[in-house]
Amino acid sequence: MAVIRTNIFSINLKYNMECYVILPDEIPKEKKLKTLWLYHGGSGDHTGWLYHTKIVEYVNERGFAAILPNVHESCFVDMNIGGKYGSYVGDELPKTMWNMFPILSSKREDNYICGLSNGGYGCLHTALKYPEKFGSVGAFSAGDKADADFANDNSEKSKTRIRLFGDTDLNQNEYGVKYQAHMLALQDIERPRIYHACGSEDPWLDMNLMVKKCFEEMPDKYDYTYDQIEGLGHVWPFWEEELVRYLNYLGLPIL
Amino acid sequence: MAVIRTNIFSINLKYNMECYVILPDEIPKEKKLKTLWLYHGGSGDHTGWLYHTKIVEYVNERGFAAILPNVHESCFVDMNIGGKYGSYVGDELPKTMWNMFPILSSKREDNYICGLSNGGYGCLHTALKYPEKFGSVGAFSAGDKADADFANDNSEKSKTRIRLFGDTDLNQNEYGVKYQAHMLALQDIERPRIYHACGSEDPWLDMNLMVKKCFEEMPDKYDYTYDQIEGLGHVWPFWEEELVRYLNYLGLPIL
Amino acid sequence: MAVIRTNIFSINLKYNMECYVILPDEIPKEKKLKTLWLYHGGSGDHTGWLYHTKIVEYVNERGFAAILPNVHESCFVDMNIGGKYGSYVGDELPKTMWNMFPILSSKREDNYICGLSNGGYGCLHTALKYPEKFGSVGAFSAGDKADADFANDNSEKSKTRIRLFGDTDLNQNEYGVKYQAHMLALQDIERPRIYHACGSEDPWLDMNLMVKKCFEEMPDKYDYTYDQIEGLGHVWPFWEEELVRYLNYLGLPIL
Amino acid sequence: MAVIRTNIFSINLKYNMECYVILPDEIPKEKKLKTLWLYHGGSGDHTGWLYHTKIVEYVNERGFAAILPNVHESCFVDMNIGGKYGSYVGDELPKTMWNMFPILSSKREDNYICGLSNGGYGCLHTALKYPEKFGSVGAFSAGDKADADFANDNSEKSKTRIRLFGDTDLNQNEYGVKYQAHMLALQDIERPRIYHACGSEDPWLDMNLMVKKCFEEMPDKYDYTYDQIEGLGHVWPFWEEELVRYLNYLGLPIL
Repeated sequence: MAVIRTNIFSINLKYNMECYVILPDEIPKEKKLKTLWLYHGGSGDHTGWLYHTKIVEYVNERGFAAILPNVHESCFVDMNIGGKYGSYVGDELPKTMWNMFPILSSKREDNYICGLSNGGYGCLHTALKYPEKFGSVGAFSAGDKADADFANDNSEKSKTRIRLFGDTDLNQNEYGVKYQAHMLALQDIERPRIYHACGSEDPWLDMNLMVKKCFEEMPDKYDYTYDQIEGLGHVWPFWEEELVRYLNYLGLPIL
Repeated sequence: MAVIRTNIFSINLKYNMECYVILPDEIPKEKKLKTLWLYHGGSGDHTGWLYHTKIVEYVNERGFAAILPNVHESCFVDMNIGGKYGSYVGDELPKTMWNMFPILSSKREDNYICGLSNGGYGCLHTALKYPEKFGSVGAFSAGDKADADFANDNSEKSKTRIRLFGDTDLNQNEYGVKYQAHMLALQDIERPRIYHACGSEDPWLDMNLMVKKCFEEMPDKYDYTYDQIEGLGHVWPFWEEELVRYLNYLGLPIL
Repeated sequence: MAVIRTNIFSINLKYNMECYVILPDEIPKEKKLKTLWLYHGGSGDHTGWLYHTKIVEYVNERGFAAILPNVHESCFVDMNIGGKYGSYVGDELPKTMWNMFPILSSKREDNYICGLSNGGYGCLHTALKYPEKFGSVGAFSAGDKADADFANDNSEKSKTRIRLFGDTDLNQNEYGVKYQAHMLALQDIERPRIYHACGSEDPWLDMNLMVKKCFEEMPDKYDYTYDQIEGLGHVWPFWEEELVRYLNYLGLPIL
Repeated sequence: MAVIRTNIFSINLKYNMECYVILPDEIPKEKKLKTLWLYHGGSGDHTGWLYHTKIVEYVNERGFAAILPNVHESCFVDMNIGGKYGSYVGDELPKTMWNMFPILSSKREDNYICGLSNGGYGCLHTALKYPEKFGSVGAFSAGDKADADFANDNSEKSKTRIRLFGDTDLNQNEYGVKYQAHMLALQDIERPRIYHACGSEDPWLDMNLMVKKCFEEMPDKYDYTYDQIEGLGHVWPFWEEELVRYLNYLGLPIL
């Protein structure tokens, strides 16, 4: 097993960004490693999945690679006012990593993104924006930011919203996941397989269900699976359990 | 929550040693933090408990500090031929940490050691050698090195044994846990409370049971608890489960 | 010598922030350590001073502590639209560090800030905003953001400016260093001693000279020293040389 | 620039080993990176060259890769009693790194080792043992352990010596650098170009001069260069200056 911490200058962001890369003990000679990109939540960073779950165990038992980026408070998007974190994490970082670690497969069918909370929204956003790079996405506790209440009232909350997305209607632009999903459905390309999960006690369960409804209304366009765990909310035990279920869903069994 | 990585020159060892210190989000003003020292296994290091368990969660939920030292391949003893890792980890490092982080309690009743496999042996050895520093020890998958087969046959295994302990009978010196336990029983001092655990499928279960027998034969001398989990062996799921049980045993409940 | 990497949740910023703490080998028993806070440049982070200079050597030879925070792209201010990095670095972080490491002196006369480029502006801003915490500031290649050209033309540069400071005149508010200096001069309190340095080849030399003029016009208010090195520009060799000169200026001699 | 910290399980050593990999900002498309392996001193570790010199600057300015392993107290040899650190650092680690980072050239003419003090001895030992892997070696403050006084008197010093090398005459086996040099001279293969440096004030100058004499007596066998700096001893300023001179010697100019 190798746990690798990188500190690399980002062209998009113009400063150094940290990232963890976790590789299994056994690296097969004949083929490249499938890769799971793990997105942190709103108050987390690149250490979140490493410190709060047994991702190192899963990597080793199941023989894949995990990459844990850090995007600060950006929700994994190109901020309306702020850095182009969406381009960094969806485009620049994969290229950097594939360059630096050629043992990682760069095929779309071998790359998956998984995220929680803000990172759950973020991974849907990335996967729908870069469908040529990612074959599947596992979004946990993930609502569409388009469905969040917004009053342009100069509150801290509204300032953050404007900073991230502007004051526009997110059902009409790429910051909206359902908007993205509908736009992508019009194109004749391979779309990512979507695994979506929420705990029954999650305070944003209803927003998750709106996303569910969207994808379930396009069954011929999206291969969509929804999973709900009763009794769990917006907590690490839920996200860890869903991580394991998602690895099973992806066909990454214990070797 | 704070995860702190230290790289500090050791006086005993004459080179830099790394260590993790994990502190909870909420640090009470009125009292100092109880501290759990976590010893790694034979092929592990200071990252082991951090990467393979949810120790960060437990620290935060239960409001204590965790310290994860690294002693390389030394089994946490003053090597017969090699560095004085036992003095480092049982004496120098606690003093360094108490100096550097005065929010840590240095009272014996607030300091506990916990280790797995070689570190399970190691934590018994440290706790019995420094009973004035540690109020309890939680030894998982922990046999007495005195009970391991030894043939002075120039094999790699025998060389390692001599390097660590010499070619002597470990039932007759401080490298032997049962020897330590008997010597300490003769003294009129407070002895550490001992929690000992082994999985039914552990290949060294019999060695664990010899240690059990030793402590159970001195019920007026040692407060000893043994726990066995059926169906588990020498693996992280066992050690994580026992970590939780040991925290409960110590009276470190979820806050 | 101890190099300590911390990852601590910030109350102001609502996410984890990394920081380096560097302590000398010899920690005097009788007195607490003077502390130099080192601010990075616009494209740097907490690793900058550690990786690009011999700060570890200086800490050890001269017996002080160094703390290297990371504030991403914020210029060390409470962003107009964005996180309160100024409060984090000038108020929250010192308190966190003084709490966590009581060997650090929290007296104003024992705390100094030093920064380069954006961090040079940043350290002036912090020292003038929190004069009760910092006894001196060493600003290298440091202009006043109030003197930077600004056209509200929707360019990336103007967006960044608005994000950091708004579209206001920085000669009229606290984002302006000269404004801060004049306001602080009106108060009857101890002001930080200011050391300011720029290379003759620095492309922003003129902006540095405007700051120089401001402080030199208030000789009864500020203890101000300016140093210019001929032939050097906006580069690490200049900043490292000035770091050494600033340590001498502070009276932190080689022991 | 990328600073990468790896924690990788070693097959030879049976536990995790840390290592730094430093890559330049600009990675040429058409060719692979030349690599400098940097060996630490007796009380150092993998952080030594990173924290005490401007290696990050040199990597970036000159466009090569640097790798900083950690071998604890082993002097970079297969210990007589202890781990096979020599095999780890001279054979296993290069293969691991070339596998993990294919942007590194694995050609002998593109790989150089450089070390200080114990690591100076160590890099000579490695380069002479694995001449097929390393095209050059830069040994700073580097004597032959065969020339160190040895009395088998049960002192700590003698125990360390036995642990590392046994109690044999190091002029008669591979632990002796001069012995290695003579043995390698008998073979019809390409030998590493040797750069050797010592400060006039180094307490082990005479041992350095014995190594010098050895190589200078075989001018047709070894391309050997000796450099002495007057007034400097066994200190980082000497090693940093020699690092720069060695990079120039290797033909790695500032780009």
